[in-house]
Amino acid sequence: MGKVEIVLNSLPMSGGDGPNSYSKNSHLQRRTTSLLKETIDKLILEKLNAKTLISDSNTFHIADLGCATGPNTFFLVDDIIKSVETSLRKSNSSKPEFLVFFNDLPHNDFNTLFTSLPQHRSYFAVGVPGSFYDRVLPQSSVHMVVTVGATHWLSSVPKEVLDKTSKAWNKGKVHYSNAAEEVVKAYRDQFGRDMEKFLEARAKEIVSGGLLVVGMCGIPKGMPFSNLADSIMYKSMADVLTQMQSQVVLHIL
Amino acid sequence: MGKVEIVLNSLPMSGGDGPNSYSKNSHLQRRTTSLLKETIDKLILEKLNAKTLISDSNTFHIADLGCATGPNTFFLVDDIIKSVETSLRKSNSSKPEFLVFFNDLPHNDFNTLFTSLPQHRSYFAVGVPGSFYDRVLPQSSVHMVVTVGATHWLSSVPKEVLDKTSKAWNKGKVHYSNAAEEVVKAYRDQFGRDMEKFLEARAKEIVSGGLLVVGMCGIPKGMPFSNLADSIMYKSMADVLTQMQSQVVLHIL
Repeated sequence: MGKVEIVLNSLPMSGGDGPNSYSKNSHLQRRTTSLLKETIDKLILEKLNAKTLISDSNTFHIADLGCATGPNTFFLVDDIIKSVETSLRKSNSSKPEFLVFFNDLPHNDFNTLFTSLPQHRSYFAVGVPGSFYDRVLPQSSVHMVVTVGATHWLSSVPKEVLDKTSKAWNKGKVHYSNAAEEVVKAYRDQFGRDMEKFLEARAKEIVSGGLLVVGMCGIPKGMPFSNLADSIMYKSMADVLTQMQSQVVLHIL
Repeated sequence: MGKVEIVLNSLPMSGGDGPNSYSKNSHLQRRTTSLLKETIDKLILEKLNAKTLISDSNTFHIADLGCATGPNTFFLVDDIIKSVETSLRKSNSSKPEFLVFFNDLPHNDFNTLFTSLPQHRSYFAVGVPGSFYDRVLPQSSVHMVVTVGATHWLSSVPKEVLDKTSKAWNKGKVHYSNAAEEVVKAYRDQFGRDMEKFLEARAKEIVSGGLLVVGMCGIPKGMPFSNLADSIMYKSMADVLTQMQSQVVLHIL
């Protein structure tokens, strides 16, 4: 048995554009984004009064929270801008300028994001380093916030699952798949606390009449997690990690 | 003689925080910023009606153009925020939120900038990748823009100084120190064109009643550049670079 040291500290997606990078391994996430396109279009056209929102500044502000390094975020933003422009054309409004806030953790590879921005884009791009479980933007500063496949990342591991004296102790496992109900509850409660902070922050940042779209995987109420295909994948990954942990120094920064 | 290949392509400051990085070798730039502190304070107190500027949004927007990787930009921004707060206290105004746009070229090391942001800062921080000789922010989106020790970096080398058939040909040298008047004029004209673009962009980005501070080195009118201490430094550096160029492959990306 080797020395085991696990340091969990704000894990961003894998940076750069090499073979193991997020930017080269995020086709599944792109598929999720594509699936949401129609819903987002509909929300923009039906729920958002873009004409009123831009009446003061003639600028429309969009934020993508948990954008990683691209390129998925660029497709998402392009689609949103096209929908907002369609909505504005329908209301005979002038064409605004667009400002896009690309947010992720401070250790996210913003260098890759910035150098891979589309050259002929129709918006001003800025990067926002910070956890979306806190405030990341000023009060009433954004018209539409979107986050896709990001809010399942908790702000931290629930303490109970690491505590050997707790009923929610997860026996060193890294996921709640096939775990006791107390473990699932510990993760669920952490998600609840995190989402409360998420929503409180967005309530301050989004203008009155703005739009928040949260896209994430779910599970039908009452279905045990172990019945899902995801569960098998996570269990296999957890088994591999646990085995590595028992054999070598595992140092995740 | 080795192969010589020089590729000039948007050169940012040296990234990271190693011994050769900008962040560890920018004491001179910090001194320049300190020298300007009193002037900037005075400008904010006398020329800026901060109370009126924040009356709609209760947020004050600052941009530092050509901020590099820090830490100088953080000291500069802190000083500006303190002055704006003093100005607002004097006019019995409420305390606003601050949003700071940190701008530099897309290849600037924003990762170092973001991970070295002061933890207990009193502002929201965003990074803006792009050349300040173009638009980098939406119309009327910023109250105060500052740029210190950055606008002497031209957008490109003037074509004439590279053209052997031109009177402004600079004979392979990399600076106009001790050069013919035509060479100096070529650089001066390029600076003129660049500053025109700079000012046109800022005129659109800065709100009415906002403030633009440009801090850069100058030279008394009529004094030959060769009389300055800087000239000797640049001439020595140019000699070294030219000698390296004649001996080895010099590849600047």
